Amino acid sequence: MSLIGVFDSGVGGLTVLREMRRRLPRADFLYLGDTARLPYGSKSPETVRRYALNAASYLRHHEIDLLVVACNTASASALPDLAKCSPIPVLGVVEPGARAAIRSGARRIGVIGTEGTIRSGAYQNTLQHMRVDLRIRSRACPLFVPLAEEGWGNHEITRQVARIYLKDLLDWGVETLILGCTHYPLLQESIRAVAGPSVKLVDSATALSDVAIEEHGALLGRTQGKGLLRLHLTDASERFLRIAEEILDSEADEFRVVDLDSGPTSPG
Amino acid sequence: MSLIGVFDSGVGGLTVLREMRRRLPRADFLYLGDTARLPYGSKSPETVRRYALNAASYLRHHEIDLLVVACNTASASALPDLAKCSPIPVLGVVEPGARAAIRSGARRIGVIGTEGTIRSGAYQNTLQHMRVDLRIRSRACPLFVPLAEEGWGNHEITRQVARIYLKDLLDWGVETLILGCTHYPLLQESIRAVAGPSVKLVDSATALSDVAIEEHGALLGRTQGKGLLRLHLTDASERFLRIAEEILDSEADEFRVVDLDSGPTSPG
Repeated sequence: MSLIGVFDSGVGGLTVLREMRRRLPRADFLYLGDTARLPYGSKSPETVRRYALNAASYLRHHEIDLLVVACNTASASALPDLAKCSPIPVLGVVEPGARAAIRSGARRIGVIGTEGTIRSGAYQNTLQHMRVDLRIRSRACPLFVPLAEEGWGNHEITRQVARIYLKDLLDWGVETLILGCTHYPLLQESIRAVAGPSVKLVDSATALSDVAIEEHGALLGRTQGKGLLRLHLTDASERFLRIAEEILDSEADEFRVVDLDSGPTSPG
Repeated sequence: MSLIGVFDSGVGGLTVLREMRRRLPRADFLYLGDTARLPYGSKSPETVRRYALNAASYLRHHEIDLLVVACNTASASALPDLAKCSPIPVLGVVEPGARAAIRSGARRIGVIGTEGTIRSGAYQNTLQHMRVDLRIRSRACPLFVPLAEEGWGNHEITRQVARIYLKDLLDWGVETLILGCTHYPLLQESIRAVAGPSVKLVDSATALSDVAIEEHGALLGRTQGKGLLRLHLTDASERFLRIAEEILDSEADEFRVVDLDSGPTSPG
């Protein structure tokens, strides 16, 4: 029996978890939300890397068989470091998103995400490396995460902010838009309303789940657990629990507040 | 010669620092921004308390003579704990703001702040303790901090968000509104536009500076330094530095990235 470890700074990764549980209803998951130090998106690559390695080490102590980095900022800044020292497969969200965008057949690809993700150039480099003839533009959208967390995913204010953030990409004629942040599926209706029906939206949650099943099918085939969900957070704010409840339909089978700051973590 | 230590999770406290430096141009300041763990406003009181004690201990190691907690969330959750174990005076923003609101002569007082500050009831309790005949209402405004950090302090979107957040308080007939977050002076124009000219706004930065000079005049009178500013951050994001430059007119005399996570901090 295997256990899938999923990690994000906060609630965004729950969109990935939701999608993976839908596809793999019998798999067991341990989700770690580093809510005491969120958000990662506005912090420096060095700090994000330190936090991500810390979180991965915590999950590995819990004997996971696959590590899913369900955070674009952490994937962009820390994936090579996470994969380098890992005895188990590590999946980030950047490559699956880039692959899905290329499969869409678009030539003009837009990427939106946190400041950290966009500044890292991770999507831009990955896409360009896969196909040299693509045209790529990107835009950081710092207010999208707080708007999603305010519960305003489908709200007039969010559509107005999206009009400001997406204007240049739409004027340029973007064909496929990568939602390069796992929070953004929560804003999908507003983004869709502003982008119009002709722009294809690629979301990290779906793209990552596709790749997980394609590439780790054998491993996941063995995942014949009870569909258990263990939720570990570094801070238990009411805000997080409220949003988590909205995103996931079911309650967690185990809920725990953990401390990643104080030295080595022991298996729980 | 004395040194004033000022601490906040991020940029908000810079509005307090700016005001204190304006009043005390020859005082030396050490500002600690816990930018690696910001924001505090959405996190649990326990986590905020742990972070605040950690930050205060760092500043005390640098031999400050007065500790200014320039963060409403930390003042609300941790001030008694910070003061209890402190050999030097500790000033928070809650009591000065409450006092200024009472001095305004208003009977209907509104308080806005982060979720953490509002949920703590710190302003509500302090006000009620000072005068039993006050009527007090409060409202958390989670998007105000990200809007200020986006540089949209005076922006149509911010005015629309303010209309939503302030509607109930304005309908109720609020006379004095406490801006219970040190970020909010950055949104003052938008809040003023929505609240109208008859509502008195009390901001933490001004209120705290008034109290610091009233109560610690003797100590501050000895503060005949060179007007030096040392800026220590736990994460050096470009975003912070850009905003800090906008808030403070002058550059820091010393800039350092420090790590509060790894055990005891030594004097620098």
